[in-house]
Amino acid sequence: MALQPEAEHPKKAFGWAARDSSGVLSPFKFSRRETGEKDVTFKVLYCGICHSDLHMLKNEWGSSIYPIVPGHEIAGEVTEVGSKVKKFKVGDKVGVGCLVGSCDSCQSCSDDLENYCSKMILTYSAKNVDGTVTYGGYSDTMVADEHFVILIPDGLPLDVAAPLLCAGITVYSPLKYFGLDKPGLNLGVVGLGGLGHMAVKFAKAFGANVTVISTSPNKKKEAIEHLGADSFVVSREQDQMQAVMGSFDGIIDTVSAMHPLLPLIGLLKNHGKLVMVGAPEKPLELPVFPLIGGRKIIGGSCIGGLKETQEMIDFAAKHDVKPDIEVVPVDYINTAMERLLKGDVKYRFVIDIGNTLKPSS
Amino acid sequence: MALQPEAEHPKKAFGWAARDSSGVLSPFKFSRRETGEKDVTFKVLYCGICHSDLHMLKNEWGSSIYPIVPGHEIAGEVTEVGSKVKKFKVGDKVGVGCLVGSCDSCQSCSDDLENYCSKMILTYSAKNVDGTVTYGGYSDTMVADEHFVILIPDGLPLDVAAPLLCAGITVYSPLKYFGLDKPGLNLGVVGLGGLGHMAVKFAKAFGANVTVISTSPNKKKEAIEHLGADSFVVSREQDQMQAVMGSFDGIIDTVSAMHPLLPLIGLLKNHGKLVMVGAPEKPLELPVFPLIGGRKIIGGSCIGGLKETQEMIDFAAKHDVKPDIEVVPVDYINTAMERLLKGDVKYRFVIDIGNTLKPSS
Repeated sequence: MALQPEAEHPKKAFGWAARDSSGVLSPFKFSRRETGEKDVTFKVLYCGICHSDLHMLKNEWGSSIYPIVPGHEIAGEVTEVGSKVKKFKVGDKVGVGCLVGSCDSCQSCSDDLENYCSKMILTYSAKNVDGTVTYGGYSDTMVADEHFVILIPDGLPLDVAAPLLCAGITVYSPLKYFGLDKPGLNLGVVGLGGLGHMAVKFAKAFGANVTVISTSPNKKKEAIEHLGADSFVVSREQDQMQAVMGSFDGIIDTVSAMHPLLPLIGLLKNHGKLVMVGAPEKPLELPVFPLIGGRKIIGGSCIGGLKETQEMIDFAAKHDVKPDIEVVPVDYINTAMERLLKGDVKYRFVIDIGNTLKPSS
Repeated sequence: MALQPEAEHPKKAFGWAARDSSGVLSPFKFSRRETGEKDVTFKVLYCGICHSDLHMLKNEWGSSIYPIVPGHEIAGEVTEVGSKVKKFKVGDKVGVGCLVGSCDSCQSCSDDLENYCSKMILTYSAKNVDGTVTYGGYSDTMVADEHFVILIPDGLPLDVAAPLLCAGITVYSPLKYFGLDKPGLNLGVVGLGGLGHMAVKFAKAFGANVTVISTSPNKKKEAIEHLGADSFVVSREQDQMQAVMGSFDGIIDTVSAMHPLLPLIGLLKNHGKLVMVGAPEKPLELPVFPLIGGRKIIGGSCIGGLKETQEMIDFAAKHDVKPDIEVVPVDYINTAMERLLKGDVKYRFVIDIGNTLKPSS
């Protein structure tokens, strides 16, 4: 018989969990393993709230294991390291993103693409090799193999660093992989949420001319004046779309609602690239003629490998690429989830774990 | 008032044309322009029958201009060259493919990608710059700017060379562009018609391990023993498909009928590429999750530029890549079209224009 979460491991831990697909979070006692030879243990100080947390809490992808302690944008300070840990020491500022394990023997792992390893272990609501369940960053402590721990550079505040570990790498990686990181390119960003606003910032940092493509005209001022986009197109306005037809080298599509691809394919130049990072649940309609006629591609991309995640956060620190966050106390999480569902956040909630998570809360 | 086809230009020409969307072809008198300064005029000896000829004859793409003289896989022998022609002389064996013109000033034209120029002029049923209609290779003579003429290498018979000018380049170009021309790759070819059988042959010539993916189990023997494919998978057999899941670096999809993409995406390795060269008329269903999960792409590709077409045909001659053809007399064309519609040809009809097209026929 499986042990209770509180007794599975020797170290006491505390966080907030959902017990069922209502998704409602409440205080939760569980446990963490001892710091292994190659493990880094850290005190969690901040944890971002990713839209996928919401899907997982409500079991919308069918893979949730309850109770769930969500959170895969975790930042904190090292409290203990294993005897064979080489990269970290007590006091370092570190983070953990979406992954805490992979097979370490497949081609993907050899290529620093642990995010495409078929045996990757997600940071929460997944099974460790020993069969125990992983718990995420809505909690007081975290322990992970050092391979899956990111060093947060000096000068990058931890609350700002946290969302880079998922939202940041999710858009940085495809910009690099699909060659959309060259200065002077004309890039579009569809959707202006957690992912979209980071796509605008990274694309600008790479030297692109950036257009936000959105259904909401009221996001224009914000996109241009605050986020630094060069232009704004309302996707429902035929004339605005027509004016930029065939003008983009690449488009990062962050929208996970159903939406038509044909207009976006039309916005691409010949040989242009439409990259999907938001995942609609049902298939979208793919018109093949316009792909063929312009040798265009539609690709997907999923977070990033650990090496690239470190590269991304170093780049972010150097080029001052910072997510816009709203820091909230832990007992605000359920309200934050409701607001997130309505898109009512600019642009990422980050839970102040260090100051507000108390065992008595 | 527009002149009649016979009186438009000074040189008499003769071919077979369809007068309306019944698509039935019959003898047709028209005219060709004088050999201009940069023009090459040649006697047509062979012309391949492409599946798109069938679509155009019946106006299935809505762009047909009647009467239509189809044919864009044209091979023959030079009879006259203009005073400024540099690359060709009388007696040369030459060919013309899908294009006879482009703007010569856009980015695509500068990049030797005339096939993506928005002002490209198709070899038949299109408008020349002077407003006259283009007529294709089901005819006794052809005249084209030398830029759009291909030199057919010695040792490549003209009947065999003809289909390379469309079917050949249509699969060669994406194999090169998408990096699928490296030895040792695992490639799939979906559909075994004019395009598919050329994809098998070019992929083998590049050193790939090639699997034909088809709905028809009875094509297996032919694909392996005759075309040289390494393996064969029946796409309707779940167990056969399951056995090769996640194993292909790339797939060339030549099928223009509606078909599901999800199984094909599943056959790709991570970072694999599904390239569409057949164009279903209606949109296909695109599941986004599997694209994201494996950083896979779906791309399209349309014939090739002139420089690459020359490279392709030189490669074909050097590596003995030859389409399988059935040579037919010109008065067999309507029967050939009926058989083509049923897929009853291995794998390309080529009309023996030189020996069978007579003004009296």
